[in-house]
Amino acid sequence: MNTIEKNDFKIISGGITAPKGFMAAGNHIGIKKVKKDLAVIFSKTPAKASAVFTRNVVKAPCLLWCEKLIKEGNNIQAIVINSGNANACTGDRGYNDAVTTAQVLAHSLNIDPNTVMATSTGVIGVYLPMDIMINGVKETAKLISEGESAAEDCAQAILTTDTFTKTITLELDIKGVPVKIAGIAKGSGMIHPNMATMLNFITTDVNIEKELLDKAFKSNIDESFNMITVDGETSTNDMAVILANGCANNPIIDKEDEDYFKFKNALDYLLVFLAKSIVKDGEGATKMLECNIKGAKNKQTARVLCKAILNSNLVKTAFFGKDANWGRIISAMGATCEDFDPKGAKITFISKKGKIVLFENGTPVQFDEDLALKILSEDEIQIIVDLKDGDAEITGWGSDLTYDYVKINAEYRS
Amino acid sequence: MNTIEKNDFKIISGGITAPKGFMAAGNHIGIKKVKKDLAVIFSKTPAKASAVFTRNVVKAPCLLWCEKLIKEGNNIQAIVINSGNANACTGDRGYNDAVTTAQVLAHSLNIDPNTVMATSTGVIGVYLPMDIMINGVKETAKLISEGESAAEDCAQAILTTDTFTKTITLELDIKGVPVKIAGIAKGSGMIHPNMATMLNFITTDVNIEKELLDKAFKSNIDESFNMITVDGETSTNDMAVILANGCANNPIIDKEDEDYFKFKNALDYLLVFLAKSIVKDGEGATKMLECNIKGAKNKQTARVLCKAILNSNLVKTAFFGKDANWGRIISAMGATCEDFDPKGAKITFISKKGKIVLFENGTPVQFDEDLALKILSEDEIQIIVDLKDGDAEITGWGSDLTYDYVKINAEYRS
Repeated sequence: MNTIEKNDFKIISGGITAPKGFMAAGNHIGIKKVKKDLAVIFSKTPAKASAVFTRNVVKAPCLLWCEKLIKEGNNIQAIVINSGNANACTGDRGYNDAVTTAQVLAHSLNIDPNTVMATSTGVIGVYLPMDIMINGVKETAKLISEGESAAEDCAQAILTTDTFTKTITLELDIKGVPVKIAGIAKGSGMIHPNMATMLNFITTDVNIEKELLDKAFKSNIDESFNMITVDGETSTNDMAVILANGCANNPIIDKEDEDYFKFKNALDYLLVFLAKSIVKDGEGATKMLECNIKGAKNKQTARVLCKAILNSNLVKTAFFGKDANWGRIISAMGATCEDFDPKGAKITFISKKGKIVLFENGTPVQFDEDLALKILSEDEIQIIVDLKDGDAEITGWGSDLTYDYVKINAEYRS
Repeated sequence: MNTIEKNDFKIISGGITAPKGFMAAGNHIGIKKVKKDLAVIFSKTPAKASAVFTRNVVKAPCLLWCEKLIKEGNNIQAIVINSGNANACTGDRGYNDAVTTAQVLAHSLNIDPNTVMATSTGVIGVYLPMDIMINGVKETAKLISEGESAAEDCAQAILTTDTFTKTITLELDIKGVPVKIAGIAKGSGMIHPNMATMLNFITTDVNIEKELLDKAFKSNIDESFNMITVDGETSTNDMAVILANGCANNPIIDKEDEDYFKFKNALDYLLVFLAKSIVKDGEGATKMLECNIKGAKNKQTARVLCKAILNSNLVKTAFFGKDANWGRIISAMGATCEDFDPKGAKITFISKKGKIVLFENGTPVQFDEDLALKILSEDEIQIIVDLKDGDAEITGWGSDLTYDYVKINAEYRS
């Protein structure tokens, strides 16, 4: 259902150590009982960095440290990520723990602490066990390597209760020079209460001006990660960061030319792939819903309506129940108070099994209930809402709301 | 947990026919299989009316008819309500069906059609079965009476899958004259897909100037019905209406004096009672959550934070799981982007079993997990968030999110 052209790049294997000059490691240091819980990403040379952070007013202290580094315009040479503890709502002590973690890694790798991001995902409101962290960071620093298995270990170590690793690697050609981009993500597994966080780390060896890296990354974020929802919750720890170390040695991308758009296009594909992977692995989800709003007055209206549909508990339970319940879609859009005319709207559902129109010109359309059930029994369903009111459009992704979502999030802390 | 003083009024029996001059009926006419599905409320003399309607852009055609009558300043003498079919998303035909329904009732009762509201609750997107409606309205008109059982029949007939009727009757004294106010409500039962709607009908025999009735009603609505949430969904058919026929013959309330505030205070109690009843009967709900935001910069911030907490699926599932999960409360507030300082916030949970403070001065408070479990095992739980940032406060009510919510709303249309 993805509309991005893949002509200008190819999907390869390798993971986040595939771009030249990047190394990684993933390790179990003892924050979690059994699973890997510490990840390190390292660039042999300091990399240009761009990052976005949660808009939640309550930011985890570790994010404040990362944000400070980015604001000061520092290059980034390493990132250390622990899972199992979010270091959120932990005040000044939490901030100092994040800085200490970065310093320990910097010392182990013999690099400047102001080039080291430290971030966390897991339970809110518990202090990091610093004895375990300090030893664990030192041990993990020794494990970093360029190998694909190190990339996979790293992708595993950032997970909480995700059911699979989310990783993708692309290769493109900039003026005859091969350039690689790779990314890993962590989605919304929350079997422990207070588990939070979407984390995304992207490595690339492209040689590009800092402000163009920033521009490409941030404009893509709005069309990818900012268009997904599992439960409408914005965590205290969400972040996405891209490191570009220039090791591919392509002629530098310093203007918005063909090469820039080639890179941006590949990056866009990578971000949407990771975003959709997060939704597919959403808590308790059995279906991925892709919602296209077309013919909207403007992009903002399209965005609000799209998110209203994907965040509606009634819409989400209806899809779980395989119920062609267009009334809830209309009602969810109407409740936003965005300016649109429901009389013009057309609602269509599509999956591998076929296509049905349910509402058009302000009135219900008679449809084949058997076909509807077949379409809605698929894992991936597309909802198209054509407002016939303008040229703006947007696509977003969400999941259904299931018994398992309630189970996962209601379970008493063990 | 309610803070309203009851000194100036008493709770009595009687239902919506208790105020002088009001009659009612409830009947099964065949829209639903077995349960009552048509209600009529009638005032012997045309009554001053005030009403609020859903802010959903997609309004049911029947609401457009009711809104027109109110906008034109008509007195209202009767209301007909069917359950089982919402007459929503039905376009011009739906509007004509609502007008026809009003006209049939007007003819049966020998009153002006422009004093008759017609409203509906039930499935979205299905035309009203007008043959059943026309005969049913005529038959039901014959049943209207002043008796308490007629009031109860009426309260039953507006329900969909609510598990109990929501009704309350108050008596107060205005300059030595007894005045009564009574109300019925319908909550959020949605076992059929697309079932919608919160409906509230209030009758009173008070003698009051129209604009003061309006003022008292609308200011109270913002602190009662507009502060409850079951699933954050705003239906296409929500409405609340009050009819004041003046039959108590008290000296007219024509200024904001002691009598006005006595009446407003009683009305406020009645509306909060009905609002809380709707939450208690929320779909699949096992708990009622009362959330008090205190010490906020201003009322709007308090309102947004309160609703964010009560609408958060993570907060709601945590309460279902009896989990003292304050981190989700902080995170839900933070995600609103309202301006508040989490470092000042104090979070307390209270129920009949006791009280625990979980978060204070920006850091977690060690609490007794056994006591927390006892407190959270109760049916009614109070969440107090003190922001220590100003004088504004607000109270809202919500429910937990349970397996049954998913079950009720995922069930395929039978």
